[in-house]
Amino acid sequence: MNTILTYLNDHYQQYLEQLNTLLRIPSVSTNPLRKSDVNACAVAVNDLFVDMGFSSSIIQTKGHPIVFASYDVDPSKKTVLIYGHYDVQPEDPVELWESPPFEPTIRDGYVYARGASDNKGQFMAHVSAVDAILKTTGTLPCNVIFLIEGEEEIGSENLFSFLKETPIHADICLVSDTPMYAKGFPSLCFSLRGLLYLEVHVKGPVRDLHSGQHGGVVKNPIHACAELLSKLKDDSDNVTIPGFYDDVRHLTDEERRLVANLPINDDAYKTSLNISDLVGDSRFSSNERKWFRPTLDCNGIYGGYTGEGAKTVIPSSASMKISMRLVSNQNPQKIKESFVTFCHEHCPKGVTLEIHDHSSAPAFMCDPTSAGVQAGLRALEETFHASPSLQGEGGSIPIISEIQHYITKDVVLMGLNFPDDQIHSPNERFYLENFKKGIEASIRFLHYI
Amino acid sequence: MNTILTYLNDHYQQYLEQLNTLLRIPSVSTNPLRKSDVNACAVAVNDLFVDMGFSSSIIQTKGHPIVFASYDVDPSKKTVLIYGHYDVQPEDPVELWESPPFEPTIRDGYVYARGASDNKGQFMAHVSAVDAILKTTGTLPCNVIFLIEGEEEIGSENLFSFLKETPIHADICLVSDTPMYAKGFPSLCFSLRGLLYLEVHVKGPVRDLHSGQHGGVVKNPIHACAELLSKLKDDSDNVTIPGFYDDVRHLTDEERRLVANLPINDDAYKTSLNISDLVGDSRFSSNERKWFRPTLDCNGIYGGYTGEGAKTVIPSSASMKISMRLVSNQNPQKIKESFVTFCHEHCPKGVTLEIHDHSSAPAFMCDPTSAGVQAGLRALEETFHASPSLQGEGGSIPIISEIQHYITKDVVLMGLNFPDDQIHSPNERFYLENFKKGIEASIRFLHYI
Repeated sequence: MNTILTYLNDHYQQYLEQLNTLLRIPSVSTNPLRKSDVNACAVAVNDLFVDMGFSSSIIQTKGHPIVFASYDVDPSKKTVLIYGHYDVQPEDPVELWESPPFEPTIRDGYVYARGASDNKGQFMAHVSAVDAILKTTGTLPCNVIFLIEGEEEIGSENLFSFLKETPIHADICLVSDTPMYAKGFPSLCFSLRGLLYLEVHVKGPVRDLHSGQHGGVVKNPIHACAELLSKLKDDSDNVTIPGFYDDVRHLTDEERRLVANLPINDDAYKTSLNISDLVGDSRFSSNERKWFRPTLDCNGIYGGYTGEGAKTVIPSSASMKISMRLVSNQNPQKIKESFVTFCHEHCPKGVTLEIHDHSSAPAFMCDPTSAGVQAGLRALEETFHASPSLQGEGGSIPIISEIQHYITKDVVLMGLNFPDDQIHSPNERFYLENFKKGIEASIRFLHYI
Repeated sequence: MNTILTYLNDHYQQYLEQLNTLLRIPSVSTNPLRKSDVNACAVAVNDLFVDMGFSSSIIQTKGHPIVFASYDVDPSKKTVLIYGHYDVQPEDPVELWESPPFEPTIRDGYVYARGASDNKGQFMAHVSAVDAILKTTGTLPCNVIFLIEGEEEIGSENLFSFLKETPIHADICLVSDTPMYAKGFPSLCFSLRGLLYLEVHVKGPVRDLHSGQHGGVVKNPIHACAELLSKLKDDSDNVTIPGFYDDVRHLTDEERRLVANLPINDDAYKTSLNISDLVGDSRFSSNERKWFRPTLDCNGIYGGYTGEGAKTVIPSSASMKISMRLVSNQNPQKIKESFVTFCHEHCPKGVTLEIHDHSSAPAFMCDPTSAGVQAGLRALEETFHASPSLQGEGGSIPIISEIQHYITKDVVLMGLNFPDDQIHSPNERFYLENFKKGIEASIRFLHYI
């Protein structure tokens, strides 16, 4: 182990340069004009694996390619699948960047570039770890597969198909695409919330009406929309759909204790957002509410005249986009049916409803006692010299549930970046100490498997 | 009288041609590119009055000019002020017009053109009436003033200033800028609702938040907006603001009887709008609710992501445009204060409110027993050979309240077009029989004053 870490120390600049090479490629998956850059990034990633002696190939899809690389040492040893993505979010608004988004720049111990944290810096920590082990020992302590896709930022649709069609054997999956809790608080993420995203169209009169000529007799679809939305939650922001909480898996006392190890400062949080109060079920801490309790949020509402000034119209329709964050063991399909039934039962007279489906994904939760999680906690503790905690994550990474479904239940979410690293925003960055410690932790993790 | 009507019969084509000349001028007041057309229309209107022997002038304003023309016969006789507007709404979407909007075309007894009903056809009925009387008798039965503005469709702001600064003496004001109830049902409009238009901004976190990372602890401004809106009305669509109905002037039994003379077909109305139910206080007929009861309507709501597809955001704010139609004797300022107090009292925790003012105007109501209204009813009855009714109008014409305030309480709203004449829409039209009967009714009206 010491030989490997010494090698890492001596060759760290080279690993950082490899990362910077990837960061210079504007692999923005959502922009058709950047298609050749996305391809170039896949080629660069594939070249790294080929140079390391992996059996690696670029798998073409209907969209952007997947890089699939494997290194088999011994079929009797365990196999670790490392997932990551080489595509990035768009860089705009580019005028808000302090240094150009595709020219990695080091300031105050951070590397600033689009993709630095999300996800090039994080998956490259694992690539560098594997390289350091190989260069030092000539082999690996376990079989390793890298699955690095190019469509995470646009929904991973073609990776879903790939996983469905391609049998992959792995015992443990390692992913670094969630944040660690804070500086000095290494943590593994053991749950992600699922998602159910629907759109409700409230339809009233056949055309927009003059609110003077018709106001007072025609039900206004915006009001109907607001009534419906306000009935979906009670005064404490609990969801009122019958049965909504029935299947929610409650944390064990041990899990609650582990989660409670992480410091919470609700006052600082409120100050940072400039809000006076937090909402939600006070039987749970704010971390528990964000990570382990389901929610319902309207993400967008529109109807009538929304330009400058005034227009006196009763619109023919109003719409709202509603997402629910689901937790373990809620079934998205069952929740959707309850939602639809509730809306129709509470639909005001004089309007009708149309409800459309955008997407759904179940929640993810791993077993904190699994071999992978235990190896991850040990690797983090020895690397960061602090007792790591378990944390949840309120967002959703649908591909993780698919990996659990098709490949292995033992998924380890080892976050290496910080919550304030501006992913998806201008001045995205990655803390270089975490890059190096991430390589170290990954080296240890692969040995403890 | 018979001589005048015979003259009208003989010269009707000439009056129609004078109307068509105005309809050919695209006097769209809101479009700066049409400024010279608007001016040309003012000149054309002024020329008509000069040719008739009026003392007429084009009064320049900060916006479009006002045509002010007067014909004094005898200071001891009554003075009738006739208000109208020569500006028109934009013609777009022009592709939906069956004949070009500024080439008046006759089909099925209607003249089709932008401004045919609103308002060139209607004010020209009165101009033609005065001309026929002058040509036949060499004088007029009363003093007549025409006040024809060019900014009605953009708020009449400069006419407001003109009325404030210019003393005008008139005993009765005659306006044809509201519809008659239906074919075969001549009616005078004796009330207009007022308007109070506000915009409520609900402010939450300092920036848009990821609904996964923050959902469950941060109050969503869209929900707060919906809660507030749903509390502003009860299940029967009555406004819940304390004191909202306190000052409402109730119709007298005689007024209710007159209004009830007009036929109502709620089923046909619902079918035409494709809605299943009407809403509102069932103690009042649908006409009474539209004309004599105040309302509150959200005319626009917006917040969060409103584009195609899904985005998981808790927006930093949400807004709603809210208008109230007020009736006689409600005070817009007092209602505004009650509204603001109500909103602040019911503002959910975790968000703050900002409320902005767009506009306000009190309701209009005239005395159905006034000399003007009685002369109008008699003129209509003799012209249309049907007993005219009194009707209200749910919309607002702020300038009418100003005329009542500065000039005379006795305002006669003699609607000559039909509710389905597509004003403000493609294929605007005016029923030619109503143009001719409008001239007749105006001739009679001026005699009965």
